[in-house]
Amino acid sequence: MTSPWVNDSNVALFTDLYELTMLQSYFHEGMDGTAVFDLFVRRLPEQRNYLVVCGLEHVLAYLETLSFSAEALSYLRSLNRFSDEFLKSLAHFRFTGDVHAIPEGTIVFANEPIIEVVAPLPQAQLIETFLMNQIQVATLAATKAARIVRAARGKPVIDFGVRRMHGADAGIKEPRAFYVAGVAATSNVLAGQLYGIPVSGTMAHSYVQAFEHELEAFRRFVRQFPEAILLVDTYDTLAGVRNVIELSRELGPKFRVTGIRLDSGDIAQLAVEARRLLDSAGLNHLEIFASNSLDEYSIEKLLNFGAPVDGFGVGGRMGVSSDAPMLDTAYKLVEYAGRATMKLSAHKGSLPGRKQIFRDSRDTVALADEKLPGQPLLVKYMENGVRKIPEEKLQAMRSRCESEIRKLGSADAGHAVELSPGLCELRAHTLDLIQEDTS
Amino acid sequence: MTSPWVNDSNVALFTDLYELTMLQSYFHEGMDGTAVFDLFVRRLPEQRNYLVVCGLEHVLAYLETLSFSAEALSYLRSLNRFSDEFLKSLAHFRFTGDVHAIPEGTIVFANEPIIEVVAPLPQAQLIETFLMNQIQVATLAATKAARIVRAARGKPVIDFGVRRMHGADAGIKEPRAFYVAGVAATSNVLAGQLYGIPVSGTMAHSYVQAFEHELEAFRRFVRQFPEAILLVDTYDTLAGVRNVIELSRELGPKFRVTGIRLDSGDIAQLAVEARRLLDSAGLNHLEIFASNSLDEYSIEKLLNFGAPVDGFGVGGRMGVSSDAPMLDTAYKLVEYAGRATMKLSAHKGSLPGRKQIFRDSRDTVALADEKLPGQPLLVKYMENGVRKIPEEKLQAMRSRCESEIRKLGSADAGHAVELSPGLCELRAHTLDLIQEDTS
Repeated sequence: MTSPWVNDSNVALFTDLYELTMLQSYFHEGMDGTAVFDLFVRRLPEQRNYLVVCGLEHVLAYLETLSFSAEALSYLRSLNRFSDEFLKSLAHFRFTGDVHAIPEGTIVFANEPIIEVVAPLPQAQLIETFLMNQIQVATLAATKAARIVRAARGKPVIDFGVRRMHGADAGIKEPRAFYVAGVAATSNVLAGQLYGIPVSGTMAHSYVQAFEHELEAFRRFVRQFPEAILLVDTYDTLAGVRNVIELSRELGPKFRVTGIRLDSGDIAQLAVEARRLLDSAGLNHLEIFASNSLDEYSIEKLLNFGAPVDGFGVGGRMGVSSDAPMLDTAYKLVEYAGRATMKLSAHKGSLPGRKQIFRDSRDTVALADEKLPGQPLLVKYMENGVRKIPEEKLQAMRSRCESEIRKLGSADAGHAVELSPGLCELRAHTLDLIQEDTS
Repeated sequence: MTSPWVNDSNVALFTDLYELTMLQSYFHEGMDGTAVFDLFVRRLPEQRNYLVVCGLEHVLAYLETLSFSAEALSYLRSLNRFSDEFLKSLAHFRFTGDVHAIPEGTIVFANEPIIEVVAPLPQAQLIETFLMNQIQVATLAATKAARIVRAARGKPVIDFGVRRMHGADAGIKEPRAFYVAGVAATSNVLAGQLYGIPVSGTMAHSYVQAFEHELEAFRRFVRQFPEAILLVDTYDTLAGVRNVIELSRELGPKFRVTGIRLDSGDIAQLAVEARRLLDSAGLNHLEIFASNSLDEYSIEKLLNFGAPVDGFGVGGRMGVSSDAPMLDTAYKLVEYAGRATMKLSAHKGSLPGRKQIFRDSRDTVALADEKLPGQPLLVKYMENGVRKIPEEKLQAMRSRCESEIRKLGSADAGHAVELSPGLCELRAHTLDLIQEDTS
């Protein structure tokens, strides 16, 4: 057998069953009026003061090509839940709506629509699951990475996390998000190929173990990769450093090793001792690279301690955003057929109407037809199912993210988000109508 | 553009750059002796007393088809790091080794090899990244789900988590793992299609909002899906329940709704009140289905409280294994060219030699050529790159998991893992050799 993968020809089924159930009802009830859905994060995780929006490009690509294959329809038929007329209509399903979105790499806060979809109700509904899945993983990753990059104070951060990410799709999409957030390179070769981002890597403990002696392993490795970063902690970190020094004596001017990597133990202390050993052997130019369960907290501690570390390899804690592995994302209907709608569920309410966000010294979430001071954040990326804005380069998103984070000021700065007078009024009005109905 | 996906033709590049770097060195040094690598979990997360092994089938499918496409080689060439001879050799790369593994659905503990790969060194090395990525996501998911299923005490658990999982691959592979662990169904239609697992779903708040009145939404929905579970908390949960009762009066004998879903607020209290309302309207047969940030902890509280909940829709907390979103997995060289190897790095050591695990009243990790009492856990799935054991049905893995967890006894039972005399001796011997070298 071959392994199952999600791809362009089956992704239409990457949806919650209830989306299709609702679609069948809409189909038979003739409900194809224009719906407006907002994708937003209800509350930030305790450990986050901002989010770095990411993942839009994958959503746009999906919307451009979304359709049901014969195989998909035949599977749906086999469930004996759906009517023939409805399934026939799915054969012609295309996304023909508009997409307003905040550009990737932008900082956002709770309750700000990241994406606003304006489309016939069934279309806007079906895409919910995929949009939430893709925006969450990329935004989680970019946000965590931005914190780590900031903690590293200009020293390079390399992504080593693919082995601990959740599955193969995260394994390519997170490195892209990391790059947007300022990470220097990824170890995942496929992510490098697919997105054109720099790839990087050193050597594994198994390489050292494959030789009887560590020094012999170092000797052989530099034959192929003279500018290597050598991993020194397989057996005993400082003995490993001494083997690097020994190699430099053996090779003399041919020694071109650029650094060492520490991957276990008390990194701060070992870095100090390794630095001293290297310096006293005249190897001041060798850099010390640290890995081993790093994140923004441990990197900050290392740097506050004054550990002479020149770069960081960050793995699973960035790869799963371990202190906040999910976001409280929502995708809510805010208008249908010209009528503003909202949800009142306890702690899970939503804001009605089409929106714009204006960013000034603070953010104001407003109605789309209001004009307020500040920079409007939502941009129309797609109109009638056709892209209006060409794919942006990752480098541009990266610059945007860097500049936005710089503007934020301190690492833990929040940012006030207010609601416009128009939005407050619409909310009050919509609430009145609902309460008339439910009381 | 189309969205990038991982698939059979590019997955060879789904590897850390250092794997390829090491492979080039092995190639030029002629190091293609037999290597043995163990994939295991070093320490269990604090919140876990056992793991449910999962994901093997995807690993075997990958190993059966693994090869480098012309496009992959051309990308590697463009990096200007690899020699032409080495890249040419990659064009013929195939996996020709043996794979010993613990069947999916089995319970395991720390330091027990889940997979043991015996293959020429470069082959066994290259596959590290993918194996770790795939086994971790499936094992995390199955383990979390097993805890949730157990907490639900026989009431059905449905997976609603795809929107919060990390990416699309997790979105299909986790539902499979959940099913192995006893989850009744998934909301992800594509996972249903690819793995033949049951799909399930109710309705979203947006459906209710798309109508001006909640009761009207319920009326229309049951036209298509008379046996629906109606979502009652869009505006006010108990008002929603009253609308369900009103609908039952309108429809009389044609009312075939099977339940209601509560998705916000104090579920325990609301379930009690909803039950009372339904019962006093003669709707005793309607089931109450709960969702809203559920996990094993909140389900246990609900049931201990005596909340009359008949089933659980579990989302992101299961989908990201939120209290333990990663495992301390390792893939370590334990033998090369007949020589046992081990790693000594602080808190990150490994056990040398080819292994077997014998499960009796406790588990003993032993050398492969030892014979101890108990059931051997590692089974040879692949020999010389060819599968020896056909693909197992998910239902068989699910039964195995259920029976293993039943045997474990209490929900938080641990299980003693010992090392055999042979393994202890080999470890001491290998340590001596290494210390001679490093001292």
